[in-house]
Amino acid sequence: MDRNIYLSNMNIEDALDLFLEKANLHKEKEIIPVIASLGRITTEPMFAKYSSPNYNAAAMDGIAVRASDTFGATEVNPIILKEDIHFVYIDTGDPIMEPYDSVIMIEDVTEVGNGELKIIASAFPWQHIRPIGEDIVAHEMIIPSNHSIRPVDIGALLSGGLKNISVYKKPRVGIIPTGTEIVEPGTKLEKGNIFESNSRMIENLVIEYGGEPKRYSPVSDNYELLKESIQKAVDENDIVVVNAGSSAGSEDYTKALVDDMGELLVHGIAAKPGKPAVLGIIDGKPVLGVPGYPVSAYIVFETFAKPLISAGAGIRLKKDEYADAILSRRMISSIQNREYVRIKLGKVRGNLIATPLSRGAGITMSLVRADGVFEIPQNSEGHEAGETIKVRLLKDLEDIENTIVSIGSHDLIMDVIANMMHKKNSEYNLSSSHVGSMGGIMALKRGEAHMAPIHLLDEKTGEYNISYIKRYLPDREMALIKGVKRVQGMMVKKGNPKNIKDIKDLLCDDIVFVNRQKGAGTRILTDYLIKKLGIDEADIQGYEREMTTHMAIAAAVASGSADIGMGVFSAAKAMELDFISIGNEDYDFAIPVEFLHDDMIQLFLEVIKSEEFKAELEEMGGYSTDNTGEIITI
Amino acid sequence: MDRNIYLSNMNIEDALDLFLEKANLHKEKEIIPVIASLGRITTEPMFAKYSSPNYNAAAMDGIAVRASDTFGATEVNPIILKEDIHFVYIDTGDPIMEPYDSVIMIEDVTEVGNGELKIIASAFPWQHIRPIGEDIVAHEMIIPSNHSIRPVDIGALLSGGLKNISVYKKPRVGIIPTGTEIVEPGTKLEKGNIFESNSRMIENLVIEYGGEPKRYSPVSDNYELLKESIQKAVDENDIVVVNAGSSAGSEDYTKALVDDMGELLVHGIAAKPGKPAVLGIIDGKPVLGVPGYPVSAYIVFETFAKPLISAGAGIRLKKDEYADAILSRRMISSIQNREYVRIKLGKVRGNLIATPLSRGAGITMSLVRADGVFEIPQNSEGHEAGETIKVRLLKDLEDIENTIVSIGSHDLIMDVIANMMHKKNSEYNLSSSHVGSMGGIMALKRGEAHMAPIHLLDEKTGEYNISYIKRYLPDREMALIKGVKRVQGMMVKKGNPKNIKDIKDLLCDDIVFVNRQKGAGTRILTDYLIKKLGIDEADIQGYEREMTTHMAIAAAVASGSADIGMGVFSAAKAMELDFISIGNEDYDFAIPVEFLHDDMIQLFLEVIKSEEFKAELEEMGGYSTDNTGEIITI
Repeated sequence: MDRNIYLSNMNIEDALDLFLEKANLHKEKEIIPVIASLGRITTEPMFAKYSSPNYNAAAMDGIAVRASDTFGATEVNPIILKEDIHFVYIDTGDPIMEPYDSVIMIEDVTEVGNGELKIIASAFPWQHIRPIGEDIVAHEMIIPSNHSIRPVDIGALLSGGLKNISVYKKPRVGIIPTGTEIVEPGTKLEKGNIFESNSRMIENLVIEYGGEPKRYSPVSDNYELLKESIQKAVDENDIVVVNAGSSAGSEDYTKALVDDMGELLVHGIAAKPGKPAVLGIIDGKPVLGVPGYPVSAYIVFETFAKPLISAGAGIRLKKDEYADAILSRRMISSIQNREYVRIKLGKVRGNLIATPLSRGAGITMSLVRADGVFEIPQNSEGHEAGETIKVRLLKDLEDIENTIVSIGSHDLIMDVIANMMHKKNSEYNLSSSHVGSMGGIMALKRGEAHMAPIHLLDEKTGEYNISYIKRYLPDREMALIKGVKRVQGMMVKKGNPKNIKDIKDLLCDDIVFVNRQKGAGTRILTDYLIKKLGIDEADIQGYEREMTTHMAIAAAVASGSADIGMGVFSAAKAMELDFISIGNEDYDFAIPVEFLHDDMIQLFLEVIKSEEFKAELEEMGGYSTDNTGEIITI
Repeated sequence: MDRNIYLSNMNIEDALDLFLEKANLHKEKEIIPVIASLGRITTEPMFAKYSSPNYNAAAMDGIAVRASDTFGATEVNPIILKEDIHFVYIDTGDPIMEPYDSVIMIEDVTEVGNGELKIIASAFPWQHIRPIGEDIVAHEMIIPSNHSIRPVDIGALLSGGLKNISVYKKPRVGIIPTGTEIVEPGTKLEKGNIFESNSRMIENLVIEYGGEPKRYSPVSDNYELLKESIQKAVDENDIVVVNAGSSAGSEDYTKALVDDMGELLVHGIAAKPGKPAVLGIIDGKPVLGVPGYPVSAYIVFETFAKPLISAGAGIRLKKDEYADAILSRRMISSIQNREYVRIKLGKVRGNLIATPLSRGAGITMSLVRADGVFEIPQNSEGHEAGETIKVRLLKDLEDIENTIVSIGSHDLIMDVIANMMHKKNSEYNLSSSHVGSMGGIMALKRGEAHMAPIHLLDEKTGEYNISYIKRYLPDREMALIKGVKRVQGMMVKKGNPKNIKDIKDLLCDDIVFVNRQKGAGTRILTDYLIKKLGIDEADIQGYEREMTTHMAIAAAVASGSADIGMGVFSAAKAMELDFISIGNEDYDFAIPVEFLHDDMIQLFLEVIKSEEFKAELEEMGGYSTDNTGEIITI
């Protein structure tokens, strides 16, 4: 087996400079109808062909007169004007015909019968007349070159007699999805297959950057088929993007194909995610091989294709906006590459807090959830918690400021609440990070969250949550918003094939457990139950394998990588697992009193107290909502 | 003739409230493919159907092994693994099959022949494996309701197995252009006709607001034809806009039609421009009659249609942005209505300066040129120069700050320079206001401009410009950027039908003059020539009719509303007039020394010194550029 396992690690700027230089994309022009030019960029200044108005026109409804016929008219000495001799009726926009040179408004004349009108003030020449060219004078510049066309420009261009306009052509971008494992959305998903989604993300990015995407049918990992498809795309487009196959696996052909069909410029850049990028030129056209992991694909495409496309389209990209934020967790990074960390932002007590999202290249949801991106430069080893970092914003700061930052335990109801809040008032958002109950308490302590969903059992009293808040946040005025009582239990495969009955069964040789992370309420409960039974955790297979949400535990059991995990009923139900109940617990929201009267917290309370919310939880099962929304001051 | 000349003057908020209440537009849903959902708004939260990945997958290229087979491997005690017995080769994304539970990267194995590999470190279970649901867990919320769909959302939705999505339907907006005088762009323009442009402006505004426009063919001012067309549009759309015919002229039928076909809510609002708006309901659907003047049409459409359309589309409109600016001229306004003044903004010496543009309802170009809008409330009599006003921004503040504010004399070369600057570096702009040379000097004095184009003859010395700068700006360090020498003269109709030979001919009875405004260099020159000949200006017909640009003078002569006017050769040439030269003058740029080294002024200098600029002026004729770009410090 012949594998090209080594990639270069070229600096991103050097790679981009080389690619742009070699790509040498020329801006092309095209003539299009003015009426279809919204958002396009002019290649030339546009000069009016006609004046507007193109004749002297009445500016008011009324009568056209000779000013000289009206001189001397006063209330005491009115002047009588005869139709067709001294005046004609005229409407706004009608041309002023010889011999008339003035307009009197209809409100200022009185009919006296016999087609005669009385006026009591004289008119001066050219009054209430729009002279030719009042709006636009022929040959005047209406809009300059490099101008992005707006609706008002379209109106002015048409008024000035222009029917067509020269704009930059949208660069055509051919997108080839590749990979034997990908299937089109809508087909049945077999094990080992994934839905083809990157080409659609890229297609829509092309539209946003000002290009014209052309997406080709997926091609399997076959050298000759790929070669044929790339050649066709190169022939039909200005830029070609090959998605996946850019790395160094046994079925990664992009590098070899570019080398074979044209000039390979770069294979491997110092970016994380995004390292296995391929940059090359085929038949004089830029070809970009982007990695298969969605986040890598996004970063490589944004870095290398965006400047090419927007420059070709003549678009001046908006400058990136940045905000200073306080890093909530330590971030270690390799000095080998520039790392693009997706960041969740929240404004708490006047401070913008940056929390890194999952850093994996395969986590599409980290892009969906990101409010910003923080670039850790090459040669930096990372940053400490509490440092101020500069985050490139992906959302409006105002939206970020209108977001409740919830950090703590995970439950499916957080999604339900977020959605109901956003639906009631789309100005407000709820952002949940799942770090476990103790993680949430600590986040409150550090001033990084508005609230922490927690379910922490006090072993001594059997009471939930309050003693933890008192112990860990003794100096703050705190409250507890009562949430839900929920059922905790063991999730096992449908039909319980290994016949698990209670916690002690975890000691069986053929049973693999999957655990929640330390600090999670569910983990604390698990540790407590184990300890109570005198079990040594080293004797439980998989006790050290940790996941951060109920759904991840459920998914692990469903997929067979574990036989059992602890979690809530709703997660088991969602993944169609069997559920062995252990008991009820209180899932509540710890919140500093100072936030209780914020509008967004009031909206949160309104939602959790609503009948709609209760009905939704009824449907999900495993919850009771008797005290939901009650506030206990601690 | 029956005229309904009286309109009501309803307060804008009251009119809008009434219209929105009666319109009662329901948001409709539609199911569309995810791949075509960019920018659309979700009606429901979207939950994943499948996990992604949907199986445990290799996260690296390498080999799949049983972790237990690798325990104890070290550099000293390597372990040898046999293909298909201890391992299989695996690529990123491949499923992990039983009995394997771990992946070793290809970089960490050494081939030793016979299908055998050597490893020198043990693998722990589940290393380099993406567990099922690592990215997206089935039933997890991917995006909430009321969410505007982005390219990354499309990727995530497809990965989560969603093919279709429920979004708000774009409200269909029928647009009916009306008027006997309108003709379609591209046809020959006869006197009394204007090109139909408003419906195209509105059509594109509908697109920007999130609606689906349907523009109908123009209908002439005929009651029955209009009725038929409105009925068809009401049947086929959610909202109907009738353009023009909304006032009270003899051919304005919109009010009567709405009254006849449905319920008339409002005729006449307290807005300027925009008073003659018609609001009504036909067959339960909102119908908006917008005035014919483009600025009125824009304001009425923005005020009444934008909130309807965006609400129907589920779009949360961006909040308007405002900036404080210093008003450069007095603005008197009627207490009868709210006036929407289009504003040109410029940043000079750290102050944002607001200069009102032409306030006429017919001046499309005031919308094209506007950087912002200032709303003078009803019941306000206006504002004094120097007052700070709140301007609603139509452009980015950054673009405004990158704009040279030129106030002074008009010449066609200002358009040429503006365009060449913008083309060389689209970050920078040149904005010219035409108030005459003396107006420019005064603007510099008040700190409202970066530069003033001037051509001011010192009668005593015969020298241009410098003595004026010394006299009026004695306290400032000033410079003069030499511009062009240009020919001044008299513009007369092609063939000079009235046989005008020199200034004295202005005294003839059958000759009508059109003048430039006071303070314009050309006016000062004209006044000077008249005085030198001992002529009394009262003896010249039309001496009091003033226009503010060379092109407006040329247009007046071309249209026959005047026989003669003073101006530059290029204007006469553009309007195909004959030109009787009087002599050369210096058209230069007065500029405070402090601005000379600004990047945008440097770009200005680069442009006027360029060969390209000189060639363009050569082409236009009437200019010489011997000293162009030289700087004289005063």
